Amino acid sequence: MREKQLLMIPGPTPVAQPVLRACSKPMINHRGPEFAELQDECNRGLAAAFKTTDDILTLTCSGTGAMEAAVVNTLSPGDKVLCLVIGAFGDRFAQIAKTFGAQVERMDFEWGQAVDERKLAARLKQDSAREIKAVLVTHNETSTGVTNDLAAIAAVVREHGALILVDAVSSLVAMDLRADEWGLDVVAAASQKAFMLPPGLAFVSMSARAWDANTTAKMHRYYFDLQKAKEFMDKKQTPWTPALPQMYGLQEGLRLIEEEGLENCFARHRRLGSAVRAACAAMGLKLFADPAHASNAVTAILAPEGTTPKQIRSLLLDKYGVVLAEGQGKLKDTVFRIGHLGYVNETDIMTTLAALGAGLHQLGPKVDLGAALDAAHRELTATSGAQT
Amino acid sequence: MREKQLLMIPGPTPVAQPVLRACSKPMINHRGPEFAELQDECNRGLAAAFKTTDDILTLTCSGTGAMEAAVVNTLSPGDKVLCLVIGAFGDRFAQIAKTFGAQVERMDFEWGQAVDERKLAARLKQDSAREIKAVLVTHNETSTGVTNDLAAIAAVVREHGALILVDAVSSLVAMDLRADEWGLDVVAAASQKAFMLPPGLAFVSMSARAWDANTTAKMHRYYFDLQKAKEFMDKKQTPWTPALPQMYGLQEGLRLIEEEGLENCFARHRRLGSAVRAACAAMGLKLFADPAHASNAVTAILAPEGTTPKQIRSLLLDKYGVVLAEGQGKLKDTVFRIGHLGYVNETDIMTTLAALGAGLHQLGPKVDLGAALDAAHRELTATSGAQT
Repeated sequence: MREKQLLMIPGPTPVAQPVLRACSKPMINHRGPEFAELQDECNRGLAAAFKTTDDILTLTCSGTGAMEAAVVNTLSPGDKVLCLVIGAFGDRFAQIAKTFGAQVERMDFEWGQAVDERKLAARLKQDSAREIKAVLVTHNETSTGVTNDLAAIAAVVREHGALILVDAVSSLVAMDLRADEWGLDVVAAASQKAFMLPPGLAFVSMSARAWDANTTAKMHRYYFDLQKAKEFMDKKQTPWTPALPQMYGLQEGLRLIEEEGLENCFARHRRLGSAVRAACAAMGLKLFADPAHASNAVTAILAPEGTTPKQIRSLLLDKYGVVLAEGQGKLKDTVFRIGHLGYVNETDIMTTLAALGAGLHQLGPKVDLGAALDAAHRELTATSGAQT
Repeated sequence: MREKQLLMIPGPTPVAQPVLRACSKPMINHRGPEFAELQDECNRGLAAAFKTTDDILTLTCSGTGAMEAAVVNTLSPGDKVLCLVIGAFGDRFAQIAKTFGAQVERMDFEWGQAVDERKLAARLKQDSAREIKAVLVTHNETSTGVTNDLAAIAAVVREHGALILVDAVSSLVAMDLRADEWGLDVVAAASQKAFMLPPGLAFVSMSARAWDANTTAKMHRYYFDLQKAKEFMDKKQTPWTPALPQMYGLQEGLRLIEEEGLENCFARHRRLGSAVRAACAAMGLKLFADPAHASNAVTAILAPEGTTPKQIRSLLLDKYGVVLAEGQGKLKDTVFRIGHLGYVNETDIMTTLAALGAGLHQLGPKVDLGAALDAAHRELTATSGAQT
């Protein structure tokens, strides 16, 4: 029964049966009327998820491709950008900008911490000549399990006037993001996170300011040319052949999200995140993230003394079929991660925590499994609308 | 019964049921042992299809992404490249090279014709200073239904010493391509053509010469960085989250190809191509391609006098559920196209030709449907190993 697994990593996330079934529908002409209808319906659902009336372009690629699209469609080589880095994905965003010729200024915060908006505000205030063209920020940092206060960051950037490019790959649909209200210029997201879809599609929203910047942006782009994507979207097509299975899945996944209700979906993620953190505390486990900014999509947990992340992950996979993620970058030998976003419910969380407690017990650390599950249960049954 | 369709376009092509079912398997950890096995098996099958021992990198994108990867991983801005253009896809390859800063010299051949190797040889002979770094060529030009003699072109390029970058998106598996024997440096292919898979994956092979060029290639790349793809492939992973449904499908599709036998698969495509051409001749239809270089994957047909391609395509879709492709670029109002590659058999061809004949009859042109089907039948039942 090796294939019977509970996939608790921050992407790919588990996919609902109706979505998987949708992914296996026969092919259609991507320049025909059926595709036009499919794309229209998906675009309506995406607009609701992004909370925007901006254009949202659908690309066949991973979230990294969407991040590249965000950068190369709004900037020129030599442009000064400020990259807010709190982990591996912030680092990746900065690497992309540098690769395509931007003059990158990094503002690094200790891994585990969130962006300090006051430091950002102070830096932008110094930039009286408005040399900084764009601020690049990660909404939810998957490597550390930290969520930035995007509303606050966006307000600071809007005050300055730079573009704000947001990596929302692991945040969108799992937590609130309001592209219009917060004035976000480019928001990059992907299918295999809270959208509850297989990997293969990514989404990029473009504000009017972003389109303005696009007219003079000279970074090299062809596959990721959003102007071309927009031109074809207006004809109800895509410039290149799209990943049809994921488009079918998106149509179905967006219906599931609508059925649950986006705000209920956020509340579910808050319950799941709180439950994992409460249970870890009850087991005496240390979390990597600053508790004030802990992510409701993914939790990075320090392997307790006498164990390694690898031991824990292997035992949980082999004995319980529970798949946890390894640490990224410099955290590889320090933390393991539980993804709790997308098609994940209360039962999945209880199962994962039970397996984790039992597994740790076998590896040495004394953990109180009953107390952990009690703590989780309390959070899972708390008023669903509770704000964190 | 609007959804009951026979998809006869040159991609996306029809997908076999076992492949569609494979696409709907549950997600797995793309950094775990199951993915390692999946990728290994796929790589063995791809090596057989490409007839190479070179590295083959699997990317999540369309064929156009693979073409971009071919260019940006082997060239630097300012490099001189010679683009052999016989249609819309050759034009696209040239556009990509230009976009990323290459100094593009085009050798255009009339649409409908193949590359004349003697002209290519003459041009390369003039280049005694070896300024031309790479020759970019389309194996099978989907817009015109013309197949280049890639073996002959490659021999000329090898004599000169430039890299040869091949767009094999609509040729691979439908017709013979021998990356090692012919000395092809980079071969770009995609999932939704003769591989009989949904769109979403692309494949790029890199010869030792191509990797050498890669060490000094300065064109901007991040998502399509093949060095990073290779580094992760060696760890049995991909740098970015891959399109898992299409990877599952690839595993199954490669098994189907192995079961049929690659050479039998080529022979089937030859039979299908011959049958379409013979039937068109019997119906008095003019083909766009030079008969000496007609493609066995796709046929471009001129709309007979008194009809438009749009009329023909609409009637066949609405009345018979047979989906044909429109003309591309400047051929939009002149031709329609029948795709006959991938998961297409003799019956599909007979059905398509019957619908086409009946449809034309309704639009005015007098066609002898019986003669057309007789002609097709003769070609379909001719000795399968016949070379074209």
